[in-house]
Amino acid sequence: MSRILGIDPGSRITGYGVVEIGARGVARYVASGCIRMKTDDFPSRLKQIFDGVSEIIELYQPQQMAIEQIFMHKNADSALKLGHARGAAICATLNQQVPVFEYAARQVKQALVGKGSAEKQQVQHMVKILLSIQGDMQIDASDALAVSLCHCHYQETAKRLQQAQI
Amino acid sequence: MSRILGIDPGSRITGYGVVEIGARGVARYVASGCIRMKTDDFPSRLKQIFDGVSEIIELYQPQQMAIEQIFMHKNADSALKLGHARGAAICATLNQQVPVFEYAARQVKQALVGKGSAEKQQVQHMVKILLSIQGDMQIDASDALAVSLCHCHYQETAKRLQQAQI
Repeated sequence: MSRILGIDPGSRITGYGVVEIGARGVARYVASGCIRMKTDDFPSRLKQIFDGVSEIIELYQPQQMAIEQIFMHKNADSALKLGHARGAAICATLNQQVPVFEYAARQVKQALVGKGSAEKQQVQHMVKILLSIQGDMQIDASDALAVSLCHCHYQETAKRLQQAQI
Repeated sequence: MSRILGIDPGSRITGYGVVEIGARGVARYVASGCIRMKTDDFPSRLKQIFDGVSEIIELYQPQQMAIEQIFMHKNADSALKLGHARGAAICATLNQQVPVFEYAARQVKQALVGKGSAEKQQVQHMVKILLSIQGDMQIDASDALAVSLCHCHYQETAKRLQQAQI
């Protein structure tokens, strides 16, 4: 059994989601939520992401962390802010000796919806179905769960391929 | 007497510089150098910045950290990488309870050369004169010393203004 933490970084709201892969490779929901930055001071916001991710890791003890890979961004200003937030989340994770795995947005959508160009709402819909979640859910939290599920999918596929070779 | 750490972040090379302000407000050179990222794996590079800055703080025990503020960037891809590196350096600093001060590039140039549009080489020239440094110096290290000297300048001016009001 292994726990995967998914992170959806943002300088105002950073989403997180924790799932557990059981013996049969089925993912189970453990927790999800958002770290909301309470201050306007930018360095303090980064520290809140760093502390928030560190606390989540201490609390849920995941073995791996998955995060969306960003190749390029249309807007340079948003890219700069997102880069800071992502850097803070990655540092907090590696600082707790948890390895980081990156997935392109297309890979996440492909793994969950079967289509690399799927809409955000479709991804959330599949997250809810796969993890049997009812009721409303913040998009930042479901995006974090989506990347953790994508990692589960890739891990399980790799395991099956390995077993088939033996 | 107080020590200021200046950081010039980059995802390949991160420059650092430490200066000490004496009782008469004169800055003295303590140390400078570069953290060179040894791996191509991006998350590991961020961890190297985080660990490198943490080690420098433990070694030189600065009371404050100064870093250049980035408002916008021409290139979204460079902005994203710079944001990550800057986020890692800021997190490492705040994690050691050292406050962070941000200065715009114009402020740094203005404080050192007296002209907000000064060239990089002019800034390095003034860093060497002000800190009596001879010989060659990597631009990343002198940029880091420049932002720490800019912070000294602002701190000393604020102190003098306060004294004049008393």
